Amino acid sequence: MDYRLGDLAERLKLELSGDPERPIRGISALGSSRPDTITFLADSRQREKMSGTRAAAVILRREDREHCPVDALISVDPYLSYAHLSVVFAAQPAAGAPIHPSAVVDPGASLGNGVRVGANAVIAGGVILEDGVEIGPGTVVLQGTRIGASSRLLANVTVHHDCVIGRRALIHSGAVIGDDGFGFAKDGRDWIKIHQLGRVVIGDDVEIGSNTCVDRGAIEDTVIGDGAKLDNLIMVAHNVRVGARTVMAGCVGIAGSADIGEDCMLGGGVGVAGHLRIPSGTTVMGMSLVAGSLREPGVYASGMSVLERKDFQRNAVRFRQLDDIAKRLAALEKALQERE
Amino acid sequence: MDYRLGDLAERLKLELSGDPERPIRGISALGSSRPDTITFLADSRQREKMSGTRAAAVILRREDREHCPVDALISVDPYLSYAHLSVVFAAQPAAGAPIHPSAVVDPGASLGNGVRVGANAVIAGGVILEDGVEIGPGTVVLQGTRIGASSRLLANVTVHHDCVIGRRALIHSGAVIGDDGFGFAKDGRDWIKIHQLGRVVIGDDVEIGSNTCVDRGAIEDTVIGDGAKLDNLIMVAHNVRVGARTVMAGCVGIAGSADIGEDCMLGGGVGVAGHLRIPSGTTVMGMSLVAGSLREPGVYASGMSVLERKDFQRNAVRFRQLDDIAKRLAALEKALQERE
Amino acid sequence: MDYRLGDLAERLKLELSGDPERPIRGISALGSSRPDTITFLADSRQREKMSGTRAAAVILRREDREHCPVDALISVDPYLSYAHLSVVFAAQPAAGAPIHPSAVVDPGASLGNGVRVGANAVIAGGVILEDGVEIGPGTVVLQGTRIGASSRLLANVTVHHDCVIGRRALIHSGAVIGDDGFGFAKDGRDWIKIHQLGRVVIGDDVEIGSNTCVDRGAIEDTVIGDGAKLDNLIMVAHNVRVGARTVMAGCVGIAGSADIGEDCMLGGGVGVAGHLRIPSGTTVMGMSLVAGSLREPGVYASGMSVLERKDFQRNAVRFRQLDDIAKRLAALEKALQERE
Repeated sequence: MDYRLGDLAERLKLELSGDPERPIRGISALGSSRPDTITFLADSRQREKMSGTRAAAVILRREDREHCPVDALISVDPYLSYAHLSVVFAAQPAAGAPIHPSAVVDPGASLGNGVRVGANAVIAGGVILEDGVEIGPGTVVLQGTRIGASSRLLANVTVHHDCVIGRRALIHSGAVIGDDGFGFAKDGRDWIKIHQLGRVVIGDDVEIGSNTCVDRGAIEDTVIGDGAKLDNLIMVAHNVRVGARTVMAGCVGIAGSADIGEDCMLGGGVGVAGHLRIPSGTTVMGMSLVAGSLREPGVYASGMSVLERKDFQRNAVRFRQLDDIAKRLAALEKALQERE
Repeated sequence: MDYRLGDLAERLKLELSGDPERPIRGISALGSSRPDTITFLADSRQREKMSGTRAAAVILRREDREHCPVDALISVDPYLSYAHLSVVFAAQPAAGAPIHPSAVVDPGASLGNGVRVGANAVIAGGVILEDGVEIGPGTVVLQGTRIGASSRLLANVTVHHDCVIGRRALIHSGAVIGDDGFGFAKDGRDWIKIHQLGRVVIGDDVEIGSNTCVDRGAIEDTVIGDGAKLDNLIMVAHNVRVGARTVMAGCVGIAGSADIGEDCMLGGGVGVAGHLRIPSGTTVMGMSLVAGSLREPGVYASGMSVLERKDFQRNAVRFRQLDDIAKRLAALEKALQERE
Repeated sequence: MDYRLGDLAERLKLELSGDPERPIRGISALGSSRPDTITFLADSRQREKMSGTRAAAVILRREDREHCPVDALISVDPYLSYAHLSVVFAAQPAAGAPIHPSAVVDPGASLGNGVRVGANAVIAGGVILEDGVEIGPGTVVLQGTRIGASSRLLANVTVHHDCVIGRRALIHSGAVIGDDGFGFAKDGRDWIKIHQLGRVVIGDDVEIGSNTCVDRGAIEDTVIGDGAKLDNLIMVAHNVRVGARTVMAGCVGIAGSADIGEDCMLGGGVGVAGHLRIPSGTTVMGMSLVAGSLREPGVYASGMSVLERKDFQRNAVRFRQLDDIAKRLAALEKALQERE
């Protein structure tokens, strides 16, 4: 992939400060030394890192231009410009037959224009793949599911029956969408399965990470809102609702019927108990547990960082005495007060 | 799917209070407004929710009947009746060829009556699939494994060699059964692999969730008891024993050689250290760590719920002083006592 | 598999104390009662367990020989000898066609000598499989990826484009290597995808567990060092660096750009925040959170073990008052001091 700096300026609609003919062959990190690349200065406090750059050009704010020894593109948000630029240098999958001969596409499936189905993929009857959908190798889409235009399912994904995925979704490898929620009723000492009759309904512009699981609803649907982004190895249980544009880092677990608002951010490894509500605009720091509904948006945490083991253990033992400590402290305060 | 209320009463062996000819086309939640559905009142305290129901009928206890404005089925356990009813409305997979032509079934595999193998599934030599087993698309079963009658493996499952799965198991998509346990011996600074010679042995009526991993034993077997239910993204390490009817919510991790009794309940995200014992009938709340054997059954917890970040951090800093705080408190108590 | 004890002594280069003709048909645990097996005494304190053994021979240290009632192999490190022995009794996959006829191998892929590709596997164009590579059934390797000699990818693995895996790697079923890192830039309230242009580069002798995800780098590469061992269901985010011989137990999550040294050990369920450094030789106990860089190697912990729920809750409530408790204690100390 070989571009001229002037082309990139035009494509990103950024002001060019330098040689439009300069060749650009990739993106590099600010501290990297790969020549013929373009980099970006997202944080003006890192200005000095530009001084030794071997990059051919830097995307930066106007006020940082004078500190840059090489060509530049002027942006009001260099990090966003970098995001827009990244697609230019992304690998393009090799074009082959639209429907690989080894794929198994049921004659009862309906495929739009420009649909591509990879090797050894399986598309069941009643599936609707709208225009421009791409199905990766080894991916399985079961009966009655509808996938919106321009969505891409990568390799070895499984989408179960009668689900709905919106447009421009990106579902990463190994993800499982619409498998059964975890529901049982007790019959004496045995567990009787509650068959899961709801669906998974995913909005537009959603990204679902590798090996993430989104279970179908018990009766109603599990719903992921438009523009939500879920990282890898996340568990979304049945009947959960995830609001638009909410993002979750890896290894998050959301229990059944939790209702998570819009524009939330859940850090890695967060656990959310079932049947509770997290208001829109809430942030939860990594490795925290949300055990009850949160009333106000804000930033929440309960994940404690490590100490040296002997220090941790010394204090953890005292945690078990904490209620006792609090009571003894109150008794002391009272004794002293009475004495005065 | 279209039923009459009288048919459902007969099927569930429940007393009908209403019109046997009333059509029922699905199950709905108590607060839902879908007509021609049946719902259930599991908790009498929610009686008032029935007043505005648009459902055609409610499964309820006899004492709640008078509060119900529509037809009813009388049950001593409406939630259990709902579980039994759910199968009636569950989607039936489209019938096709029993063995899909794209499936690769080794001639050395042994298939019982009514076995179904999905598209692009792979069944190795020496595998035994008993009567009525269903293998989903993309699923791989490796040499020498035996799968009991009426068990179902959904899509893209992997079961490794020489494992045993009981009858009526349900293994969800992406699960990996019988891959190597994690065992190494140190040789200087390098790690030498310990080949894992045991198997996974799974009882009858077990459910294993999507992308859950159950590793084979190092020397002896990893064992999952009859009727155990494991949710998604669970890690069961080598040599673990899980007792009958024990249930685990999503994202649980069990380290090697842990011995978990019968009828236990582990909440989501629980971690269990290796080489310990959890007695039958124990419940562990979500996001807790079991770092040592538990002596008595009971309800255990260590997962702390979130605070606002600034409150959490203010207190977390003090956690590091907790041993010091306890000692200073004791010193004060002593000083005061001596003074008296 | 049927060996004589003398053969095994020779193979492991251990001194034989007993009958070289004794048949050995497997490995057993020290407490097991399987006859015709060999077992090992890794810890001399467990000597007495040998007294009732039904094993035919024990691998042990010279000083334990006199306590052993059966034949023995003398080793300076019986556990390591057991590791070396384990491969002898490991199952050998049935030999079939080197390239299964159902596998889809792009003519633009390059396959070395002795390469095996399983049923329904997919090998894209530009892939290089060096000598002796084994690809399991259902596994997908995408364009431009290079896999080193004698590496094995088990079933239903996915390796994305342009990655590099070293020699003698073992990648377990369902693992996803090189899928996109999780990167977005905010545009107003929407998230714009940052296409992930880096690769995953994995060294020699690395093991990656079932359903573990290693994301490709954003700009530079995600790197796993030689001899590192990752268990199941681990999340390694983009740009992470894992040093040589570092081991991670199941369910670990590492956030983006974390830099983890050599010879570290991370317990199960550990979370590591992004953009931090863990020095070589560090151990982190299970279920702990590393929220900032660690300056010195050592043993760290923050995972608190369970209490009975009512005890836990009683103390957890006080955790929220901890800063207040500390301040009140300091005030008491001051009041007492002033009085003297």
